[in-house]
Amino acid sequence: MSDLTEPVDRADLVPPHDLGTGDFSLYPIDHAMVAAALEDRTVRVEWDDGHVSRFHFPWLRDNCPCCVHPYTQEQVFELAAAVHEIRPEDVLVSDVGALEVRWSGDGHASRYHPGWLREHCYSEGSRRERLLAPVLWDASTRARPDGFDWGAVVADEEVELEWLSSIRDTGCAVIHGAPLTDDAVGEIAGRIGVLRETNFGRLFDVRVDTDPVSNSNTGLELPPHTDLPTREYQPGLQLLHCLVNDVAGGLSLLVDGYRVAAELRDRSPRFYELLTTHPWDFANRSRTSDYRWRAPMIGVDSDGNWTGVRVGNWLRGPLDAPFDLVEELYEAYRAFEGLSHQARFQIRFRLEPGDCLIFDNRRLLHGRTSLGPGAGRRHLRGCYMDRDELRSRLNMLERRRRARKVVAGQGP
Amino acid sequence: MSDLTEPVDRADLVPPHDLGTGDFSLYPIDHAMVAAALEDRTVRVEWDDGHVSRFHFPWLRDNCPCCVHPYTQEQVFELAAAVHEIRPEDVLVSDVGALEVRWSGDGHASRYHPGWLREHCYSEGSRRERLLAPVLWDASTRARPDGFDWGAVVADEEVELEWLSSIRDTGCAVIHGAPLTDDAVGEIAGRIGVLRETNFGRLFDVRVDTDPVSNSNTGLELPPHTDLPTREYQPGLQLLHCLVNDVAGGLSLLVDGYRVAAELRDRSPRFYELLTTHPWDFANRSRTSDYRWRAPMIGVDSDGNWTGVRVGNWLRGPLDAPFDLVEELYEAYRAFEGLSHQARFQIRFRLEPGDCLIFDNRRLLHGRTSLGPGAGRRHLRGCYMDRDELRSRLNMLERRRRARKVVAGQGP
Repeated sequence: MSDLTEPVDRADLVPPHDLGTGDFSLYPIDHAMVAAALEDRTVRVEWDDGHVSRFHFPWLRDNCPCCVHPYTQEQVFELAAAVHEIRPEDVLVSDVGALEVRWSGDGHASRYHPGWLREHCYSEGSRRERLLAPVLWDASTRARPDGFDWGAVVADEEVELEWLSSIRDTGCAVIHGAPLTDDAVGEIAGRIGVLRETNFGRLFDVRVDTDPVSNSNTGLELPPHTDLPTREYQPGLQLLHCLVNDVAGGLSLLVDGYRVAAELRDRSPRFYELLTTHPWDFANRSRTSDYRWRAPMIGVDSDGNWTGVRVGNWLRGPLDAPFDLVEELYEAYRAFEGLSHQARFQIRFRLEPGDCLIFDNRRLLHGRTSLGPGAGRRHLRGCYMDRDELRSRLNMLERRRRARKVVAGQGP
Repeated sequence: MSDLTEPVDRADLVPPHDLGTGDFSLYPIDHAMVAAALEDRTVRVEWDDGHVSRFHFPWLRDNCPCCVHPYTQEQVFELAAAVHEIRPEDVLVSDVGALEVRWSGDGHASRYHPGWLREHCYSEGSRRERLLAPVLWDASTRARPDGFDWGAVVADEEVELEWLSSIRDTGCAVIHGAPLTDDAVGEIAGRIGVLRETNFGRLFDVRVDTDPVSNSNTGLELPPHTDLPTREYQPGLQLLHCLVNDVAGGLSLLVDGYRVAAELRDRSPRFYELLTTHPWDFANRSRTSDYRWRAPMIGVDSDGNWTGVRVGNWLRGPLDAPFDLVEELYEAYRAFEGLSHQARFQIRFRLEPGDCLIFDNRRLLHGRTSLGPGAGRRHLRGCYMDRDELRSRLNMLERRRRARKVVAGQGP
């Protein structure tokens, strides 16, 4: 693991004006509060750019930055155990630009950092600004995943941030120049976070030797799919590191599952509704394990965002659905599969030794073209990890970037 | 790992009448088909107990047991690639009691095993029979988790099945007589399946030494919570193996989160609705990682079943919710927390050295009472794994039980 696992120097963490924020990040003060007023159920804050925030009393009390453990910054105040009515006695903007709230009952005083407060404003406009939409793509807008040099990633946190942001936003990226060692894929994953071991092990091999005498069928095309749809916790990220590739075919193939979902939604709202609401059955049919799961093929969370797709024809179990929906569900499935097999949604590219493809296994479908005629070997080494690790690493890199700016005197 | 990871002897897997089933399980033939008829969009099957099944054409074609890879049993037929209309030419019940379907177009013939077919019937009644509801409990119906002897679990698969079924149904169980070694908790978990490593490592320690001179605050009560609510993939199972426990207090505490959810649903449908549909923010506020996730506190899947609860006051981040819902969300949260703190929902019990508590970390809240006055040490060693592993192991044990019955001549 890199130096990010080392505690950040305390000096980097002291916020301006000596105001605590209740966490370990630094918050730029892009705007100052010009007024604070006590309303019936909220505290109204006016900012120097005209923006208005309104914070409910329990929200403010819950987020008091001094009511945390001094070392861990974990909350020690328990709202559920509060004995007094939660209502400010008075509020003001202090000399140093903080929002100060004195609470009735116990008289506790809370001071809120202006940068922290603005970043957590939950007005409709502020919430909309924070939304991070995936960058949908198809063959007309993307030819291959963004590429990054492994040496540059290791040497420069800004490059690492670009690399990981690309995976977050487009669902994929390729590292070039990774060492040709058996453990390299684990090292690359380990830079992001904790690997996810499965019944296939911590690392696994995708290795096919074509036989120049008899064209065996081990080099067949693999149609687009997601790995381990049979698991409740389908792995979020997959890494595939190329050690050998001298076959004629064997191109890697990716499809943006969200792009296909969007297409289906536009073309057949009814099919889209069926695939987002009704679960399908997946089963792994192995001799030594028996993983099964049922879930909609297109996952949507309670905010209406896509959470992932589950696709793998050969890992489906017998559909267990309400009788009257069975035919329509099959039609919807065929429509989704039909789209994902169209060339206009697929990108194809060749992995060379030293390349490591990383992709979001819950968003993208992956596959490969047939290995083609003639002799040759193709050996990829892979592993899984979860999206949490990518997000945590990105958050840490963002936190460090803010700290570097402080050290350089550029703010916050 | 145990012998279950070894391939089952082929002889155990041959179904009666030499009919394939498309997977590695055996299916008891409790009922015979007495008639099969071709309807407009379905095949109608009548059974000897009067039950009627109706299977849609694409469902039958999709599940043809011969259209699988002969070794892996994975499906090779791709419905999405089918060129002919999917419609039987004719259907019949064969001499050996199988459903035979001859398909128009390519003339392919499919033969369905009666036991397999009955088990996968998706009539409303059959689907209802397959539902597996959690056994809700509170302090009035349960005093402590079911107990199992480690030696007996290792020696007898029937005991192992009981142990794992208890975890599945009640959310918890205690192993007694586990070895007092550092690796025992990993061995117990490894019997079930693959461990889940986190940023806390593969195994972790929960160790508190009370100081007999100054009563330090490291032995404080831990209120009921779930671990790692900050992760999108909150761990499904937690194991806590007791190596040392000679403190006065330090009782383990469990709450059935589904029981509390049911109580909230009965007492305040509006609060229940809010907690099942609106996400809360969780954040781990660590110096070396930055995991965050937002999800409803009570998770419900597309079938309406609970998927888990997320509760941890000190791991919540600032709530990011629509302005008009903030106050009500806080009220709902306080109601849920208030219930989970009531003694009538909590069971308390003492873990002795050699005990290993296993519980569903997404269903149960856990905590501990304060360690109490006086000298003493309490050392638990723990690990996480996911529910998938428990379910897979249970499926394998069920599969083996069926195979044992065949060998013993009791069926299927």
